[in-house]
Amino acid sequence: MKIKVINPNTTEAMTRSIEEAALLVAETGTTIEAVSPAMGPVSIESHYDEALASVGVLDEIRRGEAEGTDAYVIACFGDPGLDAARELTSAPVLGIAEAAFHAASFAGRSFGIVTTLSRTLGRARDLVDAYGFSKLCVSYAACEIPVLALEREPLACYRKLEAESKKVLAESGADSIVLGCAGMAGMCQRLSKALHVPVIDGVQAAVALSQALVRMNMHTSSVGEFALPPAKPVIGLLQAFTLDGADSLNNAESLDDADS
Amino acid sequence: MKIKVINPNTTEAMTRSIEEAALLVAETGTTIEAVSPAMGPVSIESHYDEALASVGVLDEIRRGEAEGTDAYVIACFGDPGLDAARELTSAPVLGIAEAAFHAASFAGRSFGIVTTLSRTLGRARDLVDAYGFSKLCVSYAACEIPVLALEREPLACYRKLEAESKKVLAESGADSIVLGCAGMAGMCQRLSKALHVPVIDGVQAAVALSQALVRMNMHTSSVGEFALPPAKPVIGLLQAFTLDGADSLNNAESLDDADS
Amino acid sequence: MKIKVINPNTTEAMTRSIEEAALLVAETGTTIEAVSPAMGPVSIESHYDEALASVGVLDEIRRGEAEGTDAYVIACFGDPGLDAARELTSAPVLGIAEAAFHAASFAGRSFGIVTTLSRTLGRARDLVDAYGFSKLCVSYAACEIPVLALEREPLACYRKLEAESKKVLAESGADSIVLGCAGMAGMCQRLSKALHVPVIDGVQAAVALSQALVRMNMHTSSVGEFALPPAKPVIGLLQAFTLDGADSLNNAESLDDADS
Amino acid sequence: MKIKVINPNTTEAMTRSIEEAALLVAETGTTIEAVSPAMGPVSIESHYDEALASVGVLDEIRRGEAEGTDAYVIACFGDPGLDAARELTSAPVLGIAEAAFHAASFAGRSFGIVTTLSRTLGRARDLVDAYGFSKLCVSYAACEIPVLALEREPLACYRKLEAESKKVLAESGADSIVLGCAGMAGMCQRLSKALHVPVIDGVQAAVALSQALVRMNMHTSSVGEFALPPAKPVIGLLQAFTLDGADSLNNAESLDDADS
Amino acid sequence: MKIKVINPNTTEAMTRSIEEAALLVAETGTTIEAVSPAMGPVSIESHYDEALASVGVLDEIRRGEAEGTDAYVIACFGDPGLDAARELTSAPVLGIAEAAFHAASFAGRSFGIVTTLSRTLGRARDLVDAYGFSKLCVSYAACEIPVLALEREPLACYRKLEAESKKVLAESGADSIVLGCAGMAGMCQRLSKALHVPVIDGVQAAVALSQALVRMNMHTSSVGEFALPPAKPVIGLLQAFTLDGADSLNNAESLDDADS
Amino acid sequence: MKIKVINPNTTEAMTRSIEEAALLVAETGTTIEAVSPAMGPVSIESHYDEALASVGVLDEIRRGEAEGTDAYVIACFGDPGLDAARELTSAPVLGIAEAAFHAASFAGRSFGIVTTLSRTLGRARDLVDAYGFSKLCVSYAACEIPVLALEREPLACYRKLEAESKKVLAESGADSIVLGCAGMAGMCQRLSKALHVPVIDGVQAAVALSQALVRMNMHTSSVGEFALPPAKPVIGLLQAFTLDGADSLNNAESLDDADS
Repeated sequence: MKIKVINPNTTEAMTRSIEEAALLVAETGTTIEAVSPAMGPVSIESHYDEALASVGVLDEIRRGEAEGTDAYVIACFGDPGLDAARELTSAPVLGIAEAAFHAASFAGRSFGIVTTLSRTLGRARDLVDAYGFSKLCVSYAACEIPVLALEREPLACYRKLEAESKKVLAESGADSIVLGCAGMAGMCQRLSKALHVPVIDGVQAAVALSQALVRMNMHTSSVGEFALPPAKPVIGLLQAFTLDGADSLNNAESLDDADS
Repeated sequence: MKIKVINPNTTEAMTRSIEEAALLVAETGTTIEAVSPAMGPVSIESHYDEALASVGVLDEIRRGEAEGTDAYVIACFGDPGLDAARELTSAPVLGIAEAAFHAASFAGRSFGIVTTLSRTLGRARDLVDAYGFSKLCVSYAACEIPVLALEREPLACYRKLEAESKKVLAESGADSIVLGCAGMAGMCQRLSKALHVPVIDGVQAAVALSQALVRMNMHTSSVGEFALPPAKPVIGLLQAFTLDGADSLNNAESLDDADS
Repeated sequence: MKIKVINPNTTEAMTRSIEEAALLVAETGTTIEAVSPAMGPVSIESHYDEALASVGVLDEIRRGEAEGTDAYVIACFGDPGLDAARELTSAPVLGIAEAAFHAASFAGRSFGIVTTLSRTLGRARDLVDAYGFSKLCVSYAACEIPVLALEREPLACYRKLEAESKKVLAESGADSIVLGCAGMAGMCQRLSKALHVPVIDGVQAAVALSQALVRMNMHTSSVGEFALPPAKPVIGLLQAFTLDGADSLNNAESLDDADS
Repeated sequence: MKIKVINPNTTEAMTRSIEEAALLVAETGTTIEAVSPAMGPVSIESHYDEALASVGVLDEIRRGEAEGTDAYVIACFGDPGLDAARELTSAPVLGIAEAAFHAASFAGRSFGIVTTLSRTLGRARDLVDAYGFSKLCVSYAACEIPVLALEREPLACYRKLEAESKKVLAESGADSIVLGCAGMAGMCQRLSKALHVPVIDGVQAAVALSQALVRMNMHTSSVGEFALPPAKPVIGLLQAFTLDGADSLNNAESLDDADS
Repeated sequence: MKIKVINPNTTEAMTRSIEEAALLVAETGTTIEAVSPAMGPVSIESHYDEALASVGVLDEIRRGEAEGTDAYVIACFGDPGLDAARELTSAPVLGIAEAAFHAASFAGRSFGIVTTLSRTLGRARDLVDAYGFSKLCVSYAACEIPVLALEREPLACYRKLEAESKKVLAESGADSIVLGCAGMAGMCQRLSKALHVPVIDGVQAAVALSQALVRMNMHTSSVGEFALPPAKPVIGLLQAFTLDGADSLNNAESLDDADS
Repeated sequence: MKIKVINPNTTEAMTRSIEEAALLVAETGTTIEAVSPAMGPVSIESHYDEALASVGVLDEIRRGEAEGTDAYVIACFGDPGLDAARELTSAPVLGIAEAAFHAASFAGRSFGIVTTLSRTLGRARDLVDAYGFSKLCVSYAACEIPVLALEREPLACYRKLEAESKKVLAESGADSIVLGCAGMAGMCQRLSKALHVPVIDGVQAAVALSQALVRMNMHTSSVGEFALPPAKPVIGLLQAFTLDGADSLNNAESLDDADS
């Protein structure tokens, strides 16, 4: 099967690290296609970055549909563009925050999130609540390192991550640690050994779970909210995002026609 | 004071209707600037449309900051780009779904939402939950009319809206009705008279509440999550969204420097 | 428009401070009528005080209805008598705790409450939960100062308030502070400057929001729970609270009559 | 032991019915003292009625303390004055809504409430939520009969109650029925036989549970929220509610003294 | 009335302590029958122990039904076998965790649990959530003492319990303490005196509440979930748990017969 | 890898159906070992059945540990013995209800459960709540067919299942259907085709997800709640469940020793 792993930021080095993590859990016969969009911010550390990155993610989903793809992974811990992506394809689409929380729920009663910048914890809280994991997530912590520092200074970052994770375990009694950034994927194994508890990297979780969903022949339900978006003109800078069929202007029909 | 009301879709006719609704609640001395972005979908009826529209909203917030603005209203019921907008400005930013829910909570114990297409109700549920109104919102209903039909065939749409609202009141016992689309703003008064219960239009709610917040001298807290986004390069189609200061590349500094 | 601000306790000096706060946010053309009831405790620091104060609040609402009033504010952080007040009038009635929570929700992700005596925090928790703000309120703190000390020794009180607020911000990461007593209204501006985060005074919030609701032509729904109370005799000390029409004894009719 | 059962309304006939229900569950050696306050509305069917009735309840608690009382029951389904009553005494105080919910939770997975007027269901919902029973309570229904009709026309009322209860069981699958008014106490046994499910009368539940708490030697914690209210002047119509010690004006001391 | 108190573990000394606690709250005329099952672990400190102990509990319920029993108490803080027990009898069955939480809710706004081993706190959290007490329970603490140490070294255990309870009160502001193990029943009175707040022993709570339910003539609803289990063969080691009527194999009938 | 799928009931025919379902999603290289315990009820349709079946499940986990097993699936929709099983092994253990809910959450906004007997829906609700899926599960329905009828009369059962599922979709708007019994596994594919929405069989979900967890090298955290159970004597009928090491009686040591 073919799984497309989209790194929503435009830093190629991080895309390669994400690819490596994805390959760790790939089954024989699974092709991992790890990509960055051609547009967007070099890292995602704010709601603003996420809004911009979502556009690039949707561009990659559209390309993926043209190429034939069995499942998609959105490899940024804010799961940017996830709902919209699920409208564009009936193949499974998984965010790495979402996947990490699901995986962590099998590892014990509770988990703590350790991420890069504390300003992104608000988004993490929103996702935890929206996905139904508020009882399981007992700690939200940040190392106060910029995302790209993970590539530039991995050792210094790892030390901060390990220290912060130990604090979380000691203070919250969490059973496991969820890594709050795709850029931390390469530190997962070492950290788990240091902490003696499960450490969950969302990239591996999302790839592994997406393979499971493909095996189950699961797809996103397309009877309602996640049906293809209504076709319509998109203008200006984003004109290329007009979906095929939009010129048919089907929603210009009168209501009475629609009823008949 | 100056309030900028952003219609996130690119249909100018709807922007004018929204402006009219806004003016109904403007104080003496308030200037309403109602605009559509120069880019994006002509209507917002899916998560995909929302993701695209968010970019245009952020563009308008940035322009508004350059012009001096006291408060912003995002006039689409999915509140697209709200969190990101709050990072770009310390002036109050209100989404019309958010504002409508707050207003409705003063009108009784419970409200029902009546919107255009049922496929958008999932987003409405997410916002209700995220904002803390899940006990108050007792009904989610749709008229199954496309957004732009509200402009093209207002009478037929009004009849569907009234019929659906009556059903909601009868079945759920809701104390009030929240209109689920900015395009319904012009139908608010007539509907309230027909139903004998409060009907809340989010555009009026958001403009009225934003004036209240400006009077209170309130702004968005900028100590954490809603501080200005970290400056950084944005590439490709969205390059113009690079924030000033991004070339200074402040997050390229080493972690050790950051500590000192 | 005319807004009646009811200080539920019977300390005139506090009523004057509340009036000053109210005037800070009054629109041109708004008349603020700040009153204390003719009966009740000199301060409200317990459930017992609240139960007694509710009676005076209802007395003032009834007077307000005779005089023509566009909106009411109940200026005590326990929102005493709020539900009952909403039955007596279809004009908007806002409690200051309620209004403060709503306002704070526009100022960031989270707020902390700082109040006078810790014994009143239970009521604050109940209101936060009942109004739907349990995710937003991340800290409950008390200065352990009696309410009337705020009038007698404002400086000493301010110092305690500032110290406690700083502790709340540091420990909870709250984005803003909600003042837990109408008597603190005069300290709002100074505290906000000292803390560099939004500080919300419920009196200003309630007056500003009530003006917004009047602008929107909003009223309390009177189809069910908040219809006028059934008329009936009230005996003994509270006889004067018998509502007009109670001697008609309409609920003495037989059930069969009621059905016909 | 001596249990004081306070009927918060001033209709003596209902007080006698309540006394009868209480006696059904009294242990040998238990004295039931069923009383109505000397002031207040003849029935409680609105938030307004509840606010007024609370004062009479508190008056009776104060008398009860002078007389020596082991536990109190507040026999109105809105539990008026409950929190304040718990400040006035360390003896257990139970509301009948509260007691009924607790008892119902031992009778199965879920219960439905059947009450008099639908306008009171909002209060029932608030109590269910505040006490933690929102998962258990699966139906809220009303017979639309005034409270005093229960005394005047018991047979017609019973028929409505039985019909409404059967509808609740059929539609919600509730395991038991909670009677939503103290005036229905006398119909409990007959209804349970007719429905073949447990029917819970709050008066019996509260008296039975209060005996249990007295046996356990339980009292209300008086370390914080439920300590005696701070003594202070109460003026005007309610002057008699000034607590002993209020003239000592202990909260007129300066903050500095308080610290020392 | 006859109340059967089942100690789910097989340590007779603990059964005798539990009996003593039960007798403290027994009414005149109540017979307490305190028993241990003939099978199962000597103490219950894990989910594994609970699963094994449940079988013994069910065995004792079946014996109790043969002997005529008015109510049952399951005297282990994990409430093992509670739902299944309620299927086997329509007499009230109370778990001591459940009973303790209910009792504590009458003693103030909040309680903290102090138990033996921290590994059992997960089960306590599950019960608190499932029963609806998550807002009331503000602290979960453990003394890290094995259950049987309570019998062997009561004094050392008491000292740890008192120390841990004081810490809970100081840090959480809880209004009362719930003892997290039936083996602590004998320490309840002494601890309450030392702490000056209510201390709730689940054994006394369950016995007192079960007497209250019997007085109310309450039983478990048997219309749905808690009807008698469908009769069927049980094989192997547990063959004796086959319920009477299982050989009639009523569920071997065809679906069509069942419909007719 | 080796995955042991435990059918908690003792009906061999159902074990074979479960095995077939498991094999549908097995990766190349995965060995499925599908077993029934040597003891317990022939089907699981009550809390009583579950309590008995848990013992057999634990027996099979212990055998699995001796044989070398990479992950376990408990193939009954009540997830009997799940917490206890997680104490006995650090390999992943998944219940099929749990796995089905997780899988369904990737298929859309909401799901409905369709099960055999309505009396088991209470357990389903408890699991949905405990696992955090209460917002996603929008319908609970039963076909009122005994579990073993699924083997005896598959066609009649399928027709009931399809009819009930259609009703669920029409009334609740669910995006997918979760099958509420392991015995329905063979009907999954046909039903999905008939309904045009995803249908989730917990057996396939649990096997697929357990393979994903093994790929991720995940295990159950063993630092707290899910550490090995304390060793201790188990007496009587269940004596064989005494864990190795129990005769060492390590918890008979004195507390003082434990401290040192």
